[in-house]
Amino acid sequence: MNRVNAELNPLAAELNQTLRQQAPVVTRVMSELGKKLYYPKGILTQSAEAKQKATRFNATIGEARELHHSMGLEAITRHLCDLDPDQALPYAPSAGRADLRAAWLEEIKAKNPSLGDTPVSLPVVTSGITHGLSTVADMFVDEGDLLFLPDQVWGNYRLIFGVKRGARVGSYPLYDANGGFDLRGLSEIIHKHSRVGKLVLLFNFPNNPTGYSITPAEADGIRDILLEGATRQECDIVAICDDAYFGLFYGDEVLKESLFTRLAALHPRILAIKLDGASKEDYAWGLRVGFITYGVAGGSGAYEALEKKTGGCIRGTISNSPNLSQALVLRAMGDGDYRAQKAEKFAVLARRAAKVREILAEPRFDEVWKMYPFNSGYFLCVRMNELNAEEYRVKLLNDYGVGVISTSSTDIRVAISCVDEVDLADLFDVMLACALEMKAG
Amino acid sequence: MNRVNAELNPLAAELNQTLRQQAPVVTRVMSELGKKLYYPKGILTQSAEAKQKATRFNATIGEARELHHSMGLEAITRHLCDLDPDQALPYAPSAGRADLRAAWLEEIKAKNPSLGDTPVSLPVVTSGITHGLSTVADMFVDEGDLLFLPDQVWGNYRLIFGVKRGARVGSYPLYDANGGFDLRGLSEIIHKHSRVGKLVLLFNFPNNPTGYSITPAEADGIRDILLEGATRQECDIVAICDDAYFGLFYGDEVLKESLFTRLAALHPRILAIKLDGASKEDYAWGLRVGFITYGVAGGSGAYEALEKKTGGCIRGTISNSPNLSQALVLRAMGDGDYRAQKAEKFAVLARRAAKVREILAEPRFDEVWKMYPFNSGYFLCVRMNELNAEEYRVKLLNDYGVGVISTSSTDIRVAISCVDEVDLADLFDVMLACALEMKAG
Repeated sequence: MNRVNAELNPLAAELNQTLRQQAPVVTRVMSELGKKLYYPKGILTQSAEAKQKATRFNATIGEARELHHSMGLEAITRHLCDLDPDQALPYAPSAGRADLRAAWLEEIKAKNPSLGDTPVSLPVVTSGITHGLSTVADMFVDEGDLLFLPDQVWGNYRLIFGVKRGARVGSYPLYDANGGFDLRGLSEIIHKHSRVGKLVLLFNFPNNPTGYSITPAEADGIRDILLEGATRQECDIVAICDDAYFGLFYGDEVLKESLFTRLAALHPRILAIKLDGASKEDYAWGLRVGFITYGVAGGSGAYEALEKKTGGCIRGTISNSPNLSQALVLRAMGDGDYRAQKAEKFAVLARRAAKVREILAEPRFDEVWKMYPFNSGYFLCVRMNELNAEEYRVKLLNDYGVGVISTSSTDIRVAISCVDEVDLADLFDVMLACALEMKAG
Repeated sequence: MNRVNAELNPLAAELNQTLRQQAPVVTRVMSELGKKLYYPKGILTQSAEAKQKATRFNATIGEARELHHSMGLEAITRHLCDLDPDQALPYAPSAGRADLRAAWLEEIKAKNPSLGDTPVSLPVVTSGITHGLSTVADMFVDEGDLLFLPDQVWGNYRLIFGVKRGARVGSYPLYDANGGFDLRGLSEIIHKHSRVGKLVLLFNFPNNPTGYSITPAEADGIRDILLEGATRQECDIVAICDDAYFGLFYGDEVLKESLFTRLAALHPRILAIKLDGASKEDYAWGLRVGFITYGVAGGSGAYEALEKKTGGCIRGTISNSPNLSQALVLRAMGDGDYRAQKAEKFAVLARRAAKVREILAEPRFDEVWKMYPFNSGYFLCVRMNELNAEEYRVKLLNDYGVGVISTSSTDIRVAISCVDEVDLADLFDVMLACALEMKAG
């Protein structure tokens, strides 16, 4: 009987040592679990060695192979077109396929030109963006740690960080009185809590559920606030950028890059973490391909150790992310038509967004709700003037056959991502009729 | 600021209440995290409701759709043959596709006829079998809980249960002096530790790394030992059956069913958990399709609550498992050639197993190693007589170009799953030559 937990694996100690030297903030903000994590030797590293050197026979692989190929069932592989089963069936490495990781880093740089040559880690592949969030929670959140979410929020954050990791979850206001990002609200939260020495902040632009994205000036404002927290208040900050809906920016005024560009090399006390993936950006929700990318000022020497710990966390949770899905995303990114196809889909969504803004600008809706500022993403939200949002949702569904989401007692989320442009006017007409009927009692 | 963790969500309390009434053992063996888990309402249940009732417009879905279909990129979907993108791209439910869950349950019953009408839960889909293990660890293992693994073991269990969940990890002997399963060893472990009141036991047949599977008599013996632990020693037992390599049984003497058949309705103090999946059985490692199935005597009224908690755990870890992979496994299972193709692959592996047993029976190998009893699975192990296994592995790789795995200072694992039958004689000749060279110094 040995209490595995009480002992620190020597590989973990080695990684901790590297982190301490290369990016002390990482050691300070790491959870107790994070400190214990390592990328196991044994089967994984021995197999990797064999892959390089076993020129005669490789009997390390826990997969079935025949004549140097994966032994797949035709009943499965017959559904793959122009995709070698050897690219789909074997296990991917725990941290993801090397080719995909390199390609995604290039994509991040291409989509975020102001990142320039800022050193960031190689993206680690996760099985979807939620898995990125839960991995980050495992590594950087201990019971009782303070986490601040926007007050307009995707509910699953609470399960991931609160229930599963025991974070104390607070919120900062998303909007100020003018419908912009509430810089003062964020600043006050950090001022108020910085004395605890470690804050985890989550940023989600485009926001789920409201579809708000920040302007360049607001991004600079957030940057300045975090910088002040790190310098004047000497607070360690884990800044998580949930970029799930990245790229779906409809307004001219909106920042077209990730907030991560402002934070990745901001200050040695700030660990910036970018979570993104193919799910929404590449219209591939069920494939489960996400990424974790780290950035910390002066800490590039820590990235490999961070990637190893992250890979170890993944190894101990799901072993590895789906290889077929990774192969598909990689192939798509290398497809000559990829950018044109994405642009086409974006145009469809952008037209819906424009249409919706046009419709909801009509004064007749003012009687029942107010739309939250919306400029990006899959969703928009309205705030019901008087009606209870959940009661409204239920009536709308049962009596009018229209499904929307109530995100609170006042707010209704509408996914424009799944309603065709031609149906939008009808949709809001029906929603209005239902609200008026309820109001009339 | 609210301490989410300190509050029990009402949905969790409701599930706990059901479990307490329907299967008290589940409440007793559940981890603190398990007690807090619930399947969130909000987006998930509202979307599910809308799927049923939103006949006019469904604006709940966090996916992009166009003309009632998933808005996939052709760069991705062109690689899918005879598979509707609507079956691949949308999110699957957190607990898995309903059609796949039902089909897999039928498979389990067909493969384990003695299960008969024993009520077991609907299988919950996981993203591979490791994810099944880590989900079970989240739900049933608290810091300091006693977990017993076989002393021949897949190293990742320690990361999953020990490092990530803080279990105290011990071991029971796999083999007795005659090369059968060590029933007495298991019995002694349970006797010695049953006073703590909760034991987690992990069974893995076919075993990784040695390729040992139990006989029907040994399965009955394990059943009797657990029953005694539950009755006479009044110990709650979580019995995890890791059936990753299920079905690859080569010896006539081997039990062709899962040990789960003996445990699923054994005693109200015993929660039996079957973990299995397509990874090895269906030659689909990188697809990441696994399952968790529960069985507890008299506890069928608890299954739905258990499935919900399990689904909630998955929701908070990875959201959901890859849908394309689930679709492929489901399609394969429904393919008229599925069983014939599996039988063909099995025959290939069975021939390799027979060949290897023939080769290693030659007395010339006795000088360097002894093979562990082997009758199933992907691997076999040899115990080096004198040589250090890791030194041997390194020399074998560097000087002979042959890759194997050292699983301890004495043991070498050889994957027959990835070496063609025609190469097996050569492989062991080279391994012998290397060992003899080292021995000669």
